[in-house]
Amino acid sequence: MFEKMKRTHQCGMLTKENSGQEVTLMGWVQTRRDHGGLIFVDLRDRSGIVQVVFNPEYSREAFETAKEVKTEYVIAVNGKVYERPKESINPKIKTGEIEVFADKLEILNPAKTPPFPIEDDIKVDESLRLKYRYLDLRRPSMLCNITFRHKVSKAIRDFLDENGFIEVETPMLTRSTPEGARDFLVPSRLNPGTFYALPQSPQLFKQILMVAGIERYYQITRCFRDEDLRADRQPEFTQLDIEMSFVDVEDVISLNERLMKYVVEKTMGISLEIPFKRITYKDAMEIYGTDKPDTRFGLEMVDVTDIASKSDFRVFSDAAESGGKVKGINIKNSAEIFSRRQIDELVEKAKEFGAKGLAWIIYSGEGIKSPIAKFFSEELLNELLKRMNAQPGDLMVFVADTDPKLVLTSMGQLRLHLGKQLNLIDENSLNFLWVVEFPLLEWDEEENRFVAMHHPFTSPMDEDLDLLEREPSQVRAKAYDLVLNGTEVGGGSIRIHRTDLQERMFKVLGFTKERAWENFGFLLRAFEYGTPPHGGIAYGLDRLVMLLLGLNSIRDCIAFPKTQNAACLMTEAPAPVESRQLKELHIQIAN
Amino acid sequence: MFEKMKRTHQCGMLTKENSGQEVTLMGWVQTRRDHGGLIFVDLRDRSGIVQVVFNPEYSREAFETAKEVKTEYVIAVNGKVYERPKESINPKIKTGEIEVFADKLEILNPAKTPPFPIEDDIKVDESLRLKYRYLDLRRPSMLCNITFRHKVSKAIRDFLDENGFIEVETPMLTRSTPEGARDFLVPSRLNPGTFYALPQSPQLFKQILMVAGIERYYQITRCFRDEDLRADRQPEFTQLDIEMSFVDVEDVISLNERLMKYVVEKTMGISLEIPFKRITYKDAMEIYGTDKPDTRFGLEMVDVTDIASKSDFRVFSDAAESGGKVKGINIKNSAEIFSRRQIDELVEKAKEFGAKGLAWIIYSGEGIKSPIAKFFSEELLNELLKRMNAQPGDLMVFVADTDPKLVLTSMGQLRLHLGKQLNLIDENSLNFLWVVEFPLLEWDEEENRFVAMHHPFTSPMDEDLDLLEREPSQVRAKAYDLVLNGTEVGGGSIRIHRTDLQERMFKVLGFTKERAWENFGFLLRAFEYGTPPHGGIAYGLDRLVMLLLGLNSIRDCIAFPKTQNAACLMTEAPAPVESRQLKELHIQIAN
Repeated sequence: MFEKMKRTHQCGMLTKENSGQEVTLMGWVQTRRDHGGLIFVDLRDRSGIVQVVFNPEYSREAFETAKEVKTEYVIAVNGKVYERPKESINPKIKTGEIEVFADKLEILNPAKTPPFPIEDDIKVDESLRLKYRYLDLRRPSMLCNITFRHKVSKAIRDFLDENGFIEVETPMLTRSTPEGARDFLVPSRLNPGTFYALPQSPQLFKQILMVAGIERYYQITRCFRDEDLRADRQPEFTQLDIEMSFVDVEDVISLNERLMKYVVEKTMGISLEIPFKRITYKDAMEIYGTDKPDTRFGLEMVDVTDIASKSDFRVFSDAAESGGKVKGINIKNSAEIFSRRQIDELVEKAKEFGAKGLAWIIYSGEGIKSPIAKFFSEELLNELLKRMNAQPGDLMVFVADTDPKLVLTSMGQLRLHLGKQLNLIDENSLNFLWVVEFPLLEWDEEENRFVAMHHPFTSPMDEDLDLLEREPSQVRAKAYDLVLNGTEVGGGSIRIHRTDLQERMFKVLGFTKERAWENFGFLLRAFEYGTPPHGGIAYGLDRLVMLLLGLNSIRDCIAFPKTQNAACLMTEAPAPVESRQLKELHIQIAN
Repeated sequence: MFEKMKRTHQCGMLTKENSGQEVTLMGWVQTRRDHGGLIFVDLRDRSGIVQVVFNPEYSREAFETAKEVKTEYVIAVNGKVYERPKESINPKIKTGEIEVFADKLEILNPAKTPPFPIEDDIKVDESLRLKYRYLDLRRPSMLCNITFRHKVSKAIRDFLDENGFIEVETPMLTRSTPEGARDFLVPSRLNPGTFYALPQSPQLFKQILMVAGIERYYQITRCFRDEDLRADRQPEFTQLDIEMSFVDVEDVISLNERLMKYVVEKTMGISLEIPFKRITYKDAMEIYGTDKPDTRFGLEMVDVTDIASKSDFRVFSDAAESGGKVKGINIKNSAEIFSRRQIDELVEKAKEFGAKGLAWIIYSGEGIKSPIAKFFSEELLNELLKRMNAQPGDLMVFVADTDPKLVLTSMGQLRLHLGKQLNLIDENSLNFLWVVEFPLLEWDEEENRFVAMHHPFTSPMDEDLDLLEREPSQVRAKAYDLVLNGTEVGGGSIRIHRTDLQERMFKVLGFTKERAWENFGFLLRAFEYGTPPHGGIAYGLDRLVMLLLGLNSIRDCIAFPKTQNAACLMTEAPAPVESRQLKELHIQIAN
């Protein structure tokens, strides 16, 4: 019986130091090979793999049982550790210098043949991996991801605890509020016709906790958004949520830099340099064409609108004169890398990204080659080259449009495309960047009103307070995003803590006072009882882990993720329920 | 402006050591007193309270502003720390030896007068506290509870991480399964007519994680049960969930003893003695009349059925002869404490608890006084007294019934009542106790079948395997509960890890193979692919914290609890939603 064997060691921990020791191991059979009258089993547990040898002369009984053993059987083995002879040392595994000669073997559980091999490089449809997630998680890389995720969470908690933060749990069954994404709803049985909403974030609660005087709050918690799923989104995701009282932007930023430094150091052994670089939203858009720039490579955008306005190239001058923009990127030393066909492909790419076209200039040793050169005087052309910091060997590309935003975003995407195409991205670097001074509001065409860019509790910058009613679009917020390698991993703001300013904000958002109180009454009421200045940040933990690990899919760092259709292939959730259940909840399925 | 003042110290941290230092403090005004031409403000932040003095000669401006200040205003103060003159030292507060003379004051936010004072001993309806929870949480005892809870969680994580456990997050949007409490359901928008269920516990997922080879898993996670709420229950509650592979009962118990010892030591500075005491379910019922005995006091039940059967007292002899029981409790040295009227009250209590009556014997210096003595021969009475370990001065009470369970439970309740009435309970002691060898199954009258006492994945004890089909009610489980001061704080079991045994179990529970697969198919499928022996435990974290703190209500250690009606009085959840939302979810409110 199993009860009689007691595990003494983990497979992957055995080294030469253990030679001569009697050990009891338990784990899964990675492989079984029969060779030269012996049976070799690679035994795997969470810690790694070790080779177990069954020799009929050593134990006939164990040898006979070993014959029954197949891949993924769960076994218990008792045996003695021996150093391997030099010629059998396997440098590929940590335990490759030793092997265990078994004298006892018990099959704890047999196993069917798994639908895919338990190893890292498998070519198998992800849906099969998700259906058999328990087998997928046995693969070393997945186990490593899940373990790493645990370590990240642990490091976050250690740091925040050390820095005086209290983890406070906020409700999951809460209230549906507007101004966010779509809510998941939960019908209430005890209160017929009413619903809870699952939290999109603990935003209101963490502000309430500041009113409550918690001062330094954090929580690692599940959040829910019922959105149509993109590749890196999940209907439920994990958020690291932080809020602090009596702080300004600098306090929040500096704490979070130290947090990231601590986490990366503890989990990866990499020492990050802090403070991180910062860029304003405006500069990010102008230089990188996005509010989450990937700064692992250059290819910055240069504004040439003023020069372009003086050219005879109508596309340029029209754009410049009608409030549009002309932007260029100098692809250094690439004149010879790009064939004409490749440049044409680049033009097509730019169009895919929304640009109407892509102008280009080749500056080679033989001079300028460009379809647009003829529209420039020599002087103007030199001015352009100078602005672009051009040298012989450079290829420059330009986008012009009467819609300035289109120029920025299309060129921003082209920049990313070029970065990948030219292999300019160091996949091993971790490039953290703060984007600051976001606009407070953006115009929503559909709703025909201003909406909050972050959320309606974000504080305007003091300098821009006067503009709130006069020029809402010009107001900058005390908001900041933390970007890692071109992906937003965190975002936050200093909040509005005074009722009067909050009411002005709601007015600008087109909420009547009545409607504001109807929706956020409990927060507005709380604000009347002594609210400290406060601010915070929230991270997408799944995404942070994904980026630190350099994974391509967020699903690879979530134990039980959902598909794009928000389904779990393993449990087959969501599923129909019994009509009795619906009746109790006072709901029915709509016709 | 606030931005110009920067907090340098926390109020409660200032001591004589800080005398002479210039400090900037921020917090809430606890009280303001005007006295002798000065203004005294007790300033409170998370760390405690300090006295700030406004002297017009020191700063006229600050003094003038201080006149505006009221209770719960949020202020920033700059000033200098002075030792108080001896006669003004306040030994009641930590900072009582110093005070801060203010030279700058800024009102960061005014405050309405709170509906109840921010102090510990308040007499106010709990519903008002819940509505203004942000004010309630400002009270020192509530802040202390929430902080303590954080420390408990942190200590748990530290210990488990140190012991090789990986925290793995399991889904919140999962599948409804039978054999549990009522589920909270979440309609799916993307899959019309289907529903997610919020997890009642991560039970199936943690077993799946053992199949996945995680070996040591834990999670502190939210669970949901849509039950009619009792005083110490919440619709959402926090569970500490632990599961281990390749272990037996002893391993789980010993790990959890070390965990509790660590947590109590780290958070309370108390050194618990381990191992904890253990009692079988059977003994717990026989001796304490409950499966969660409060062992902080004695008053154990003594079985006197055999003696009673020989008496002429029909209530006793009938009970004994028809398979019932007669049990007594010796209330030592209480003969003189209880008046006849008090004994009569005890009889009434026993009836409230379900007993048909309560027999009693007073054994005083003058001999025996008892209405039942006459039914006993002298010899038999002596036998009874001996069994009851009776000495002069003792009062003994007895319950007899043909239903043995009724005897146990009514007497168990009477015992608790006596423990409280006689003040036998040391409120400061932490009495941990394992209850083991639970019955695997119990008969459900309503469903007319056996149901699992813990859950359908609990392993029978090896010794009792043969009885599974033959005598299901006699089978004991590898299950254990951890009881603290008479309340269950954790419970778990070694699980069934082999498909064949799991199928036998389902059969005994009256599940056809088809129905078992329909409901638990994904777990049964997983079990086919190499499942290690495994087991674990789950704690109610809220309840553990409540008991460690000696609180009377679980709501006092939850930041935002719900009422008995499962409502949040602060946010007014649950609430009606817009019909558009229901339409998107393909549901409607039932007529």
